[in-house]
Amino acid sequence: MVDAKIKIGVLGASGYTGADAVRLALTHPNLEIAALTANTHAGKPMATVFPHLAIAHLPDLTRIDEADWSAVDVVMCGLPHGTTQEIAKGVLDAHKHVRFVDMSADFRLRDPDVYETWYGRPHTAMDVQPEAVYGLTEHNRAAIADARLVACPGCYPTAVLLALLPLARGGVVDMDDIVIDAKSGVSGAGRGLKENTLFCEAGEGLSPYAVTTHRHMPEIEQELSAASATDTTISFTPHLVPMSRGELLTIYVRLPQGKTAGDIRSAWQAVYADEPFVHVLPEGVAPSTQMVRGSNHCLLNAFDDRIAGRAIVVATLDNLVKGSAGQAIQNLNVMMGLPETTGLEQAPLFP
Amino acid sequence: MVDAKIKIGVLGASGYTGADAVRLALTHPNLEIAALTANTHAGKPMATVFPHLAIAHLPDLTRIDEADWSAVDVVMCGLPHGTTQEIAKGVLDAHKHVRFVDMSADFRLRDPDVYETWYGRPHTAMDVQPEAVYGLTEHNRAAIADARLVACPGCYPTAVLLALLPLARGGVVDMDDIVIDAKSGVSGAGRGLKENTLFCEAGEGLSPYAVTTHRHMPEIEQELSAASATDTTISFTPHLVPMSRGELLTIYVRLPQGKTAGDIRSAWQAVYADEPFVHVLPEGVAPSTQMVRGSNHCLLNAFDDRIAGRAIVVATLDNLVKGSAGQAIQNLNVMMGLPETTGLEQAPLFP
Amino acid sequence: MVDAKIKIGVLGASGYTGADAVRLALTHPNLEIAALTANTHAGKPMATVFPHLAIAHLPDLTRIDEADWSAVDVVMCGLPHGTTQEIAKGVLDAHKHVRFVDMSADFRLRDPDVYETWYGRPHTAMDVQPEAVYGLTEHNRAAIADARLVACPGCYPTAVLLALLPLARGGVVDMDDIVIDAKSGVSGAGRGLKENTLFCEAGEGLSPYAVTTHRHMPEIEQELSAASATDTTISFTPHLVPMSRGELLTIYVRLPQGKTAGDIRSAWQAVYADEPFVHVLPEGVAPSTQMVRGSNHCLLNAFDDRIAGRAIVVATLDNLVKGSAGQAIQNLNVMMGLPETTGLEQAPLFP
Amino acid sequence: MVDAKIKIGVLGASGYTGADAVRLALTHPNLEIAALTANTHAGKPMATVFPHLAIAHLPDLTRIDEADWSAVDVVMCGLPHGTTQEIAKGVLDAHKHVRFVDMSADFRLRDPDVYETWYGRPHTAMDVQPEAVYGLTEHNRAAIADARLVACPGCYPTAVLLALLPLARGGVVDMDDIVIDAKSGVSGAGRGLKENTLFCEAGEGLSPYAVTTHRHMPEIEQELSAASATDTTISFTPHLVPMSRGELLTIYVRLPQGKTAGDIRSAWQAVYADEPFVHVLPEGVAPSTQMVRGSNHCLLNAFDDRIAGRAIVVATLDNLVKGSAGQAIQNLNVMMGLPETTGLEQAPLFP
Repeated sequence: MVDAKIKIGVLGASGYTGADAVRLALTHPNLEIAALTANTHAGKPMATVFPHLAIAHLPDLTRIDEADWSAVDVVMCGLPHGTTQEIAKGVLDAHKHVRFVDMSADFRLRDPDVYETWYGRPHTAMDVQPEAVYGLTEHNRAAIADARLVACPGCYPTAVLLALLPLARGGVVDMDDIVIDAKSGVSGAGRGLKENTLFCEAGEGLSPYAVTTHRHMPEIEQELSAASATDTTISFTPHLVPMSRGELLTIYVRLPQGKTAGDIRSAWQAVYADEPFVHVLPEGVAPSTQMVRGSNHCLLNAFDDRIAGRAIVVATLDNLVKGSAGQAIQNLNVMMGLPETTGLEQAPLFP
Repeated sequence: MVDAKIKIGVLGASGYTGADAVRLALTHPNLEIAALTANTHAGKPMATVFPHLAIAHLPDLTRIDEADWSAVDVVMCGLPHGTTQEIAKGVLDAHKHVRFVDMSADFRLRDPDVYETWYGRPHTAMDVQPEAVYGLTEHNRAAIADARLVACPGCYPTAVLLALLPLARGGVVDMDDIVIDAKSGVSGAGRGLKENTLFCEAGEGLSPYAVTTHRHMPEIEQELSAASATDTTISFTPHLVPMSRGELLTIYVRLPQGKTAGDIRSAWQAVYADEPFVHVLPEGVAPSTQMVRGSNHCLLNAFDDRIAGRAIVVATLDNLVKGSAGQAIQNLNVMMGLPETTGLEQAPLFP
Repeated sequence: MVDAKIKIGVLGASGYTGADAVRLALTHPNLEIAALTANTHAGKPMATVFPHLAIAHLPDLTRIDEADWSAVDVVMCGLPHGTTQEIAKGVLDAHKHVRFVDMSADFRLRDPDVYETWYGRPHTAMDVQPEAVYGLTEHNRAAIADARLVACPGCYPTAVLLALLPLARGGVVDMDDIVIDAKSGVSGAGRGLKENTLFCEAGEGLSPYAVTTHRHMPEIEQELSAASATDTTISFTPHLVPMSRGELLTIYVRLPQGKTAGDIRSAWQAVYADEPFVHVLPEGVAPSTQMVRGSNHCLLNAFDDRIAGRAIVVATLDNLVKGSAGQAIQNLNVMMGLPETTGLEQAPLFP
Repeated sequence: MVDAKIKIGVLGASGYTGADAVRLALTHPNLEIAALTANTHAGKPMATVFPHLAIAHLPDLTRIDEADWSAVDVVMCGLPHGTTQEIAKGVLDAHKHVRFVDMSADFRLRDPDVYETWYGRPHTAMDVQPEAVYGLTEHNRAAIADARLVACPGCYPTAVLLALLPLARGGVVDMDDIVIDAKSGVSGAGRGLKENTLFCEAGEGLSPYAVTTHRHMPEIEQELSAASATDTTISFTPHLVPMSRGELLTIYVRLPQGKTAGDIRSAWQAVYADEPFVHVLPEGVAPSTQMVRGSNHCLLNAFDDRIAGRAIVVATLDNLVKGSAGQAIQNLNVMMGLPETTGLEQAPLFP
């Protein structure tokens, strides 16, 4: 039947990522929310966990093991890393028709040793891992279209890779001197109760965190190494910014002899000119998070530094949308043969 | 031709209200943005004035006197009060087909003396004023549908009147003891450059303002007096809150003998049960601005006070959406015979 | 020896109230911090719990039962309510020289039934309770000077009572129609991990909370009833504001025949003209929390309402200073015979 | 007379820098505020321009040309750059006893060509310039003590130079590869009315600004070049952060063969071990702006990067205190023979 909606189940619906997937799905013309799980809130209406969704008609939250996957076409998974591998494997093994869009980190790293090193536990679904397609939509469409399991990139990797992949592939930047200063709104830390994300702790202040230890590094290096065909190590320092949404990456790069920021912009234009969600701003205009809040857009620009042979690359996106739930829906659209922008047309919310 | 889009022109497109009208219009399936005016920014692309709209294809900003109203079906006006009367009159006189949805204060007050008292200047378009329909959609649909000129309520009046009109009509509250404590995000003060709306002045602080002098009072009193058939004076004290969007009204009322908060809730349910944008929350749940950010929803609830015979009414909405641009589009939908929720289905953005 | 410093011990030094007591004590010329307790952080340096205090030389945190009270002159207690009664009793019984300045709620209510009703547990130190002096400094100096146990008022009661006590005593307002709309920064909710005080939940939003059930009501009513010699019930609705510090009370009162806001201001001037920390602003100037951040000042003003016979009273203070730790030090100064402003002269921090 | 206070005049007292100088001076035991100037607010009480200072007894604001400099010992100047040169020259020429602590940028650059290049106007007081001592207290005490004119560093240069000067002098970092990612609260942009510093524009967002063009670069390069005896060019990109106060510098450096972050920490310890306001945090602890708000402290740390031969340096301070008014008072203390910490002992305000 032509009008049948695609039924989705959202795992981890009590987290910010899950809630934003629900928010976007609500106005997606082809999606129906069939199941919402959240073990610690099972049995509750979604409205008691996320009052801003009270205006919608949604199924109550259930435990994961109570969900009926046979009635679901696509699973969108917003569980914390480390819990997704076995669940994904279980669902995919038992329900051959189901497709799984994972917003967690569990299937992003192809090398199980790297996974274990950075996540401190062995990979427990290595038989499923080879099926996983890295879900950076703009760079992996064909594989995503056919995949049963899509591992959506982390929020930082999405922005970094949208900025650097065309440069790595085109030899526009030196791969051995990439310094990434990352800034994120507090929602990137999730909804779990932690002292450093209390209003009084995160507000009116700026903090570096996870200096030299952030788990998005191996994922970025995996993709940059593949794109440049050279083992790439990056310098990456994230900072917590007193805002809820949005992230901005300031990337300091060294250029091969004769290259300039103009070459960076050209390399992007060659790849992204027709992309609906990736935009190169006019020369001289710096991206800022205010330009993308609540939307699925990623903005890029590059500037020649005062030091010859160096450039400054800036990328921004909303960590919960293009950096997570929005990109997941974009991938779902690709997987299900829908126009890629379906349900993602909302303009940014400003102010 | 069935598919022809309705062409709108937005006056005052460089203000927050105008920009939010544009944001909403962009995903409205029946609207086409044909003209954007902003005298001080004429000639610029909208993207230089509102970079978050860079991703859209929009006409450049023009001067008001350069706009071609013959090519426009509906004017949405976000000019400051005091500038709209002559412009509206000019447009409506010259272009009989044009309909005018005014988000300014200029046509809200039916009595020119009251207008002059509160706005400090005489009304300059009293011949057009009788045509103006007060655009509180839920309470005035029939008149709005036929109107050429709709005067959308102010943001505070929208929330106050959605809460109090059913109570005033039903005799559920005493009209001589209504105390309204109003709190608004900073966008309610507009985009003009004022010291008190600088980040460093408004941030991390709470300020009462316009104590006993706020211009939304006469508008509220006009409508409450009409609804209750008694001359009504309210106590109204607004406060500036360090957030961009959202407003919340805490209204302290005295009840006629035997009435309770339950009667308030019942009066609302009788009127709003089928409304798509006005919702009575479950008993005991307090509305908060976080539940409506970026959406066209208004949330209500009522609580019995500890003092017998008193109740506490709480109402919230996004001042730029249901309090302005969203309600304006809702009215436009009514005027043009479209389903009232068209283009306004977005769920709130949280966090 | 004239130069000997007063040794203080801070109970609950890992909370915001305790930390602000430490902050103020650090520049108080007569105080020495001899002990800091925090059971869950015992053994840690204060700098690991409050990095902003890393620049000070402070004793490590200990468990309460490890503290040596014989070496302490004054205990400042910032424990949560319900835990202080037995500890205070134990310390006061065992160490006759010790004086106890309690910032918790445990000794504020003189009637054990009222305590049990509002705090859900029986009072467990009723033998000590009669010794407790309610520590609203400006209204209770003589008793505070002699007290061994001072129960500092809650943050809201401090502001409300500074505003209303002179009016209640002077018959300047009707006691049967007092509506208090209270707004507080998030630090008022403490440092405990709660979802509603996360940055992403409290930020960019305004929420009423504890509607009709806030525990500061019985305390306010106890003092207003005593001052006015009439049983007083108030209407009190608090709201959470997206700022860390500061609270503002908008109080709606009805005036006896012939009284005006001018009489309110006169009543305050009569009482507060020489007070170092309570100030009546010039006519027409509204207090705001930005004027008091980080300081021990309380600002007041009153406005005639548009409704005859009504007035609007506004009071503001920093909830952690005059509303808690600052007032506690002010009381300590009184108890120890020091000039009352010692250590509390800091001007507000703005912006 | 031994007790006579030092009389100060604050130029530009209606700006944030001037106001913070007043705030600090109010509790400085040796200072008396004798004059406050602000041309556009001349004649007003300070309390109408900065209500948080209403609690102090201060002279009314005057025009600069009305100030009586003969009655002033020290001028603290918070005027915008470009206006200070002629005023300083006039005051210093006419009043030989006056000492001038300049918080503006006008006397920081020793080379008039560099000044003209970056500030777009010729230097107009080059005869006075040679007298100007660069007021980075910790590195220039002897010269400051004797100076009549002290040019306090900009906020960013203060933090950058406290971090890098010991490294430049000691050869601990390569001078040809210094990348500085700077983040500042909004007060750094001043109190002037600009759209990008409105609450609704700067709030809930992060923006790079002045990419490759920020005027603090030549000042940093002047001092680093002198310290390292090599012409030094830096990469410097500032960002506007949604907080009022505080700045944080993340500095990416390359190290000479064999050097590590430990050498950076050692170099700092050698210089700063006894400094009251510059602190090296324990290994692994990242500085954050929350640790210094409202105080005169600067915090430093260094981390070995994952890329061999690279380190990450982090520095933070309050831009209005150690980055401006606090350092100015610290210099005043040095100039007047007072203990350097006088009036600057306040602990940071957190939360």
